[in-house]
Amino acid sequence: MAILSDIEIANQVEMKPIKDVVAPLGITEDQLTLYGNYKAKISAHELENLKDKEDGKLILVTAITPTPAGEGKTTTSVGLADAFTKLNKKAMIALREPSLGPVFGVKGGAAGGGHAQVVPMEDINLHFTGDFHAIGAANNLLAALIDNHIHHGNALQIDSRNITWKRVVDMNDRQLRHIVNGLQGRVNGVPREDGYDITVASEIMAVLCLANDPDDLKVKLGEMIIGYNFSGDPVTAKDLKAEGALAALLKDAIHPNLVQTLEHTPAIIHGGPFANIAHGCNSVIATKLALKYADYAITEAGFGADLGAEKFIDIKCRLGNLKPDAVVLVATIRALKMHGGVPKKELEPENVEAVVAGLTNLDKHIANIQDVYGMPVVVAINKFPLDTDAELKAVEEACKERGVEVVLSDVWANGGAGGVELAEKVIELADKPNNFQFVYDEEDSIEEKLNKIVQKVYGGKGVEIVPAARKQLKKLEELGYGNLPICMAKTQYSFSDDQTKVGAPKDFTVTIRNLKVSKGAGFIVALTGAVMTMPGLPKSPASERIDIDSDGNITGLF
Amino acid sequence: MAILSDIEIANQVEMKPIKDVVAPLGITEDQLTLYGNYKAKISAHELENLKDKEDGKLILVTAITPTPAGEGKTTTSVGLADAFTKLNKKAMIALREPSLGPVFGVKGGAAGGGHAQVVPMEDINLHFTGDFHAIGAANNLLAALIDNHIHHGNALQIDSRNITWKRVVDMNDRQLRHIVNGLQGRVNGVPREDGYDITVASEIMAVLCLANDPDDLKVKLGEMIIGYNFSGDPVTAKDLKAEGALAALLKDAIHPNLVQTLEHTPAIIHGGPFANIAHGCNSVIATKLALKYADYAITEAGFGADLGAEKFIDIKCRLGNLKPDAVVLVATIRALKMHGGVPKKELEPENVEAVVAGLTNLDKHIANIQDVYGMPVVVAINKFPLDTDAELKAVEEACKERGVEVVLSDVWANGGAGGVELAEKVIELADKPNNFQFVYDEEDSIEEKLNKIVQKVYGGKGVEIVPAARKQLKKLEELGYGNLPICMAKTQYSFSDDQTKVGAPKDFTVTIRNLKVSKGAGFIVALTGAVMTMPGLPKSPASERIDIDSDGNITGLF
Repeated sequence: MAILSDIEIANQVEMKPIKDVVAPLGITEDQLTLYGNYKAKISAHELENLKDKEDGKLILVTAITPTPAGEGKTTTSVGLADAFTKLNKKAMIALREPSLGPVFGVKGGAAGGGHAQVVPMEDINLHFTGDFHAIGAANNLLAALIDNHIHHGNALQIDSRNITWKRVVDMNDRQLRHIVNGLQGRVNGVPREDGYDITVASEIMAVLCLANDPDDLKVKLGEMIIGYNFSGDPVTAKDLKAEGALAALLKDAIHPNLVQTLEHTPAIIHGGPFANIAHGCNSVIATKLALKYADYAITEAGFGADLGAEKFIDIKCRLGNLKPDAVVLVATIRALKMHGGVPKKELEPENVEAVVAGLTNLDKHIANIQDVYGMPVVVAINKFPLDTDAELKAVEEACKERGVEVVLSDVWANGGAGGVELAEKVIELADKPNNFQFVYDEEDSIEEKLNKIVQKVYGGKGVEIVPAARKQLKKLEELGYGNLPICMAKTQYSFSDDQTKVGAPKDFTVTIRNLKVSKGAGFIVALTGAVMTMPGLPKSPASERIDIDSDGNITGLF
Repeated sequence: MAILSDIEIANQVEMKPIKDVVAPLGITEDQLTLYGNYKAKISAHELENLKDKEDGKLILVTAITPTPAGEGKTTTSVGLADAFTKLNKKAMIALREPSLGPVFGVKGGAAGGGHAQVVPMEDINLHFTGDFHAIGAANNLLAALIDNHIHHGNALQIDSRNITWKRVVDMNDRQLRHIVNGLQGRVNGVPREDGYDITVASEIMAVLCLANDPDDLKVKLGEMIIGYNFSGDPVTAKDLKAEGALAALLKDAIHPNLVQTLEHTPAIIHGGPFANIAHGCNSVIATKLALKYADYAITEAGFGADLGAEKFIDIKCRLGNLKPDAVVLVATIRALKMHGGVPKKELEPENVEAVVAGLTNLDKHIANIQDVYGMPVVVAINKFPLDTDAELKAVEEACKERGVEVVLSDVWANGGAGGVELAEKVIELADKPNNFQFVYDEEDSIEEKLNKIVQKVYGGKGVEIVPAARKQLKKLEELGYGNLPICMAKTQYSFSDDQTKVGAPKDFTVTIRNLKVSKGAGFIVALTGAVMTMPGLPKSPASERIDIDSDGNITGLF
């Protein structure tokens, strides 16, 4: 049997009208803003109407330290939700919207995989309901207003050498990373160094995802810092009188999007901030709505549990007043082998010894979730076609020996049926009491926060702050931002800041090279190295293989 | 009584569900892709299903040489359609989508005015159904592919000093007009001079608007020239294997959008190319669909009848195989005064003498429509609040003396009721036989075409082609593009290329400074001077006054 591509599998399933998909949750057609038959927006204001309704259980799906291919968190989330549906439980997933740019690069689409996908996948991957374009337009309006202000006399005394607000485009376009603009004379702006990020790296994306409601969105938009004046004081979007227009541009984007899985489980897909310089989770509003409508709301966080889950807890849960009930930790045989020291090119052949050696990584993540975050956890081994029984068994047995809940998940091949055992385990765990806690307190100093993350979560000795970052830290505390949570921008491939250190490294320090504030979003970004916020395209980009036929059917999207 | 703003007037009217608005045209709900209750897309493929149905009458609304404020073509078009509805005729308007960028500048929204508007106006002005963002994304994907190709070895030998494809953003952002990108080392692209246009200036906008169907769109996208190689040969989007991905990005944008007027007349709003470096008309597909669904399809062309109507005829009708049945020529007292020699600041006080003196401009446009284009015409005097009876009467009497049909149109104040007399006249004219003809033949040389436009339409002696443009002309003919129609990029404020020459200047020549091909769209652009393809924002941009309240109501959009 030929292995079908994700889009081929997706095309074999007949979608249900979205109004029918969400009807069992008590959502009526007049509450929806339809975008065709299979996509809709649900108003953020429904949260007010539902404020007296009890929340469902919040399930976080995270992963061990990943390989570059990813360990299948989205696929597991989708399959888990479908398994809940199979068990006649009201479930809903809340996921991030995929970014358009990478679709034309190497990666292809991003909406789960195999028989655990959200659909319509070509719409979700191409424009969807326009949220990211709206965020890009708002970001670029603010950029235009900054340069326009300087052009017309610079009453705010903005220092054009210290503008931190960049333009964005939802495209992988390395050519735009570093530019000089405003060239060719006084009618054409003021020459300065500038650069582009991909749209998902815009602070507006993080703001939209952390806003509690549309009013809060406008407040946060106004608080965004666009740069500094010649005295070194921050200049905000509000100083440019921009927040009303920015919020108007986001008038639809603030409302979550409803779609369905291949098995017709309702899904909310909303927002998608970068997981390094931002917190990497879908919107707070989406998660809260899922909790109101479903008995089990399943959501995910970017990268591994050291980064994504930590930010989910310390940023999203803290700012959004959320509290998870159980954690699913996704592990793969491939990743365990990598942590067992096997080079990337040799991950395919059976290697039980390497799998066992790689359990150090899994163990550390389990310990973090249980002891640092205070949450019950189940390990979901996400089965891949080349995994052998011996390898899978080795992991299961090791977990059982340690007294850790573990389940084999086969949702990629079997959809919800492949996740029923996982769902049953999650139901059990979510009913247990837990000791949910943040990693640090708001009142801790910036340095204390950084040290707590490194010592408690990463297993290192602490941070080393380079002199330039030390200066930034002082400035941020002077400006009164010392009580904001921290957003760590660190490699996702190691607990440490050195991506070659697989497994569970010890005795390392993490070097903080750069500290900056995302005041609108409400966190301080700590960068441990250069972070790529504008990807490039490969030599033979995926765009060359994407096509559409006369009837509008798209191929090559993966 | 306080004068209400357009958005206030719009908000007083309760819209009907779009499915009910279009039902009388025989469009059923299952043929619509809804975007909420009040916007929908109708498939371009419906044209095939309707191919045996007889077309309605095609009415072109154009104007005399305008003032910077515009003479109200859209308002007249909307009011005329509403008047048809009042007369129980099946009518539909086909209009351009407004651009987002200018909304934040001086102009505010663009969807008609007063009691002759299309709604929902805030949606139409902000993102609408995402068409322009999709066009921008396609444009910028192609740009990224060009630089990525060069970065990875430049197998096509693209001359980076001769790339004609620019990036776009739907924002007024002068800072981006001239940039240098690809800076900071070999991993970050290849340094070169570049620049941005506003999205409506993208050739993809013109291509989308001139495509006859989705397959034709893909062919045209592939034919777009992105620049030249070191041998001087054109390099196309097809050479970069981009046309499939570009067409996939436009999968929804190719389908026209349905909305309604304040009086519930159905409106198609689709595409909006620049009226100088492109042809300035809504999509061919939209116009053709309106002709299939309605007995009277009313459409407009950009700027005055010398530019917009000429391009409508020589480009849109020629490439789209369309044929108008009657022309409405919009004139205003203000513009006539300007053509009578009154300075811009003195246009308000009554000045019958100036109005009469300005009739030279009106006369020349009437003669063009009747004798050059071979069409029956009615002059619609678009009434403004400050117009006096004596001024209005002077124009009416002058027209009557000349044997020209003339009607006072008061749709801004009275909606469809203010346009009934105009509609009755249009019905009469559209039933008359006409001698519709192009201004030039495809087989004419480029220079012959240019001379025919200047001599027959503008009333000048002919063109003067500067040596650099002469060289471009030779090259374009060598490349085999000599048989393409011409798209004149000339000031809209005069028949000549000198915007200070009001009225009907004579004995002038038009200087052609630049000739370039838009091969995908299918025309040669002749530039008579510098054309601004990226606007800037004013010192106090409209964005400062735009706001949104807790319930999502937008203010300050006008």
